Amino acid sequence: MTAIGYVHGYSDQEARRLGDQADALAELLHHGTAYPPGSRVLEIGCGVGAQTVHLAANSPGAHLAAVDVSEASLARARARVAAQVSGADVAWHRADLFELPFPDAAFDHLFVCFVLEHLPDPHKALAALRRVLRPGGTVTVIEGDHDSAFFHPHSAYARAAIGGLKRLQADAGGNALIGRELQPLLSDAGFHDVTVRPRTVYVDRTRPALVEDFIRNTFIAMVVSVREDALAAGVSTAADWDRGIADLHRTAAADGTFHYTFFKAVAINPLSAQRR
Amino acid sequence: MTAIGYVHGYSDQEARRLGDQADALAELLHHGTAYPPGSRVLEIGCGVGAQTVHLAANSPGAHLAAVDVSEASLARARARVAAQVSGADVAWHRADLFELPFPDAAFDHLFVCFVLEHLPDPHKALAALRRVLRPGGTVTVIEGDHDSAFFHPHSAYARAAIGGLKRLQADAGGNALIGRELQPLLSDAGFHDVTVRPRTVYVDRTRPALVEDFIRNTFIAMVVSVREDALAAGVSTAADWDRGIADLHRTAAADGTFHYTFFKAVAINPLSAQRR
Repeated sequence: MTAIGYVHGYSDQEARRLGDQADALAELLHHGTAYPPGSRVLEIGCGVGAQTVHLAANSPGAHLAAVDVSEASLARARARVAAQVSGADVAWHRADLFELPFPDAAFDHLFVCFVLEHLPDPHKALAALRRVLRPGGTVTVIEGDHDSAFFHPHSAYARAAIGGLKRLQADAGGNALIGRELQPLLSDAGFHDVTVRPRTVYVDRTRPALVEDFIRNTFIAMVVSVREDALAAGVSTAADWDRGIADLHRTAAADGTFHYTFFKAVAINPLSAQRR
Repeated sequence: MTAIGYVHGYSDQEARRLGDQADALAELLHHGTAYPPGSRVLEIGCGVGAQTVHLAANSPGAHLAAVDVSEASLARARARVAAQVSGADVAWHRADLFELPFPDAAFDHLFVCFVLEHLPDPHKALAALRRVLRPGGTVTVIEGDHDSAFFHPHSAYARAAIGGLKRLQADAGGNALIGRELQPLLSDAGFHDVTVRPRTVYVDRTRPALVEDFIRNTFIAMVVSVREDALAAGVSTAADWDRGIADLHRTAAADGTFHYTFFKAVAINPLSAQRR
């Protein structure tokens, strides 16, 4: 969404990972998010459309606009939505979130998923977003927090590899631990009635679909996607990194377990009389 | 519950902490646990009765038995239940869980909360418990996992203090990270249909009762309770420890947040034909 590099890259593999992630987690993350017919909804940082398909499917009749900074991602998103959601009403815009091509108060609702974690100044970003949201409209923000990842069997190597990802993301100006900060971030940006709830993924052998879709195809794939950058940055040796990844795969075995917490925030843009 | 020391001690303050903890978390932890009238229910490691009062209140008509290794704790538990739950039917027994004074299959249901984390061999303990559970009966286990604790503002000192508590508990033969292991533990002990779900406590300024009851009176109080032992064991310097505690209190301020995950498992003792 900004000039800052997207830490996970723009490969075909990464596009597939984002699609797997969104489908496996769709019910968990999107539960409770449905906009009324006729409402104007802006998705910020739609990327390859991994969340857009769920927004469109869950809010038939809403007028969606989706913004991303990457033309290539927008093309993928457009194709994904066309293939998966018939009759979806989505206007696609290539733009930076700090220079949104919309008048003030143009939208009834904003949706922001896995975006703030990549921005060097999420507070400033939320202020820019608030401009295009009508008073009384809502903003929904979903982010993860990589310190919420723990698993059985425990592995110091696996934690170190995740730590490497956190550091790369921080080096790129982001914050892989932003989930826990959503409440103060949205409050400080002037939103009211900020409600944050954890949306926790817990996986064990009794949930084989999540073993595959979340542990392997979402979480491990996310860590694996930064391997070359991590080694180049000297975050880890190749041997330690690969052992960390092997240990993460170990948690997908029959006696393994995995825990990760996403945070979902909903808040209201106050009417001007309520503003501080 | 065993000869191994209870890491948090037996003081009046600790008894109060356990009561605060149970009340603040009662709905979160006990939701879904109600035994039918006439059923025979055994609580293992009832301690000062912090959970027993909720068991008795939520299962009127059930015949409860509560076991603990400490006579003093049992006296407190008896007084607490008498004061808080009129008409509760609880038989109190001082016993070690490896020498339970009950015949085989004496109970329809077992309830085990914050006990396995203190035992050097939780697998052996579960096997001993299974003996007194009738085939087809259920076991419910609730445990925490201290690696699930994260908070805003982040603090390396606070994490180090929590790490000190984990180490003391490990030195005493326990495991403060046992929550993530409940699925394989119960499966390996021969239980069937093992279902584990996270029960997550998330606290921010919009939940002032939990700021007080969970962050301050439960979690911080738990860490504070081991200060002298931690310093004596050389786990931390006094200055670092106290800074960690101060930083934990900082998470209870208006812009702070706190996250902790408990795990609740329910499983069935198989009929003999189903046993492996």
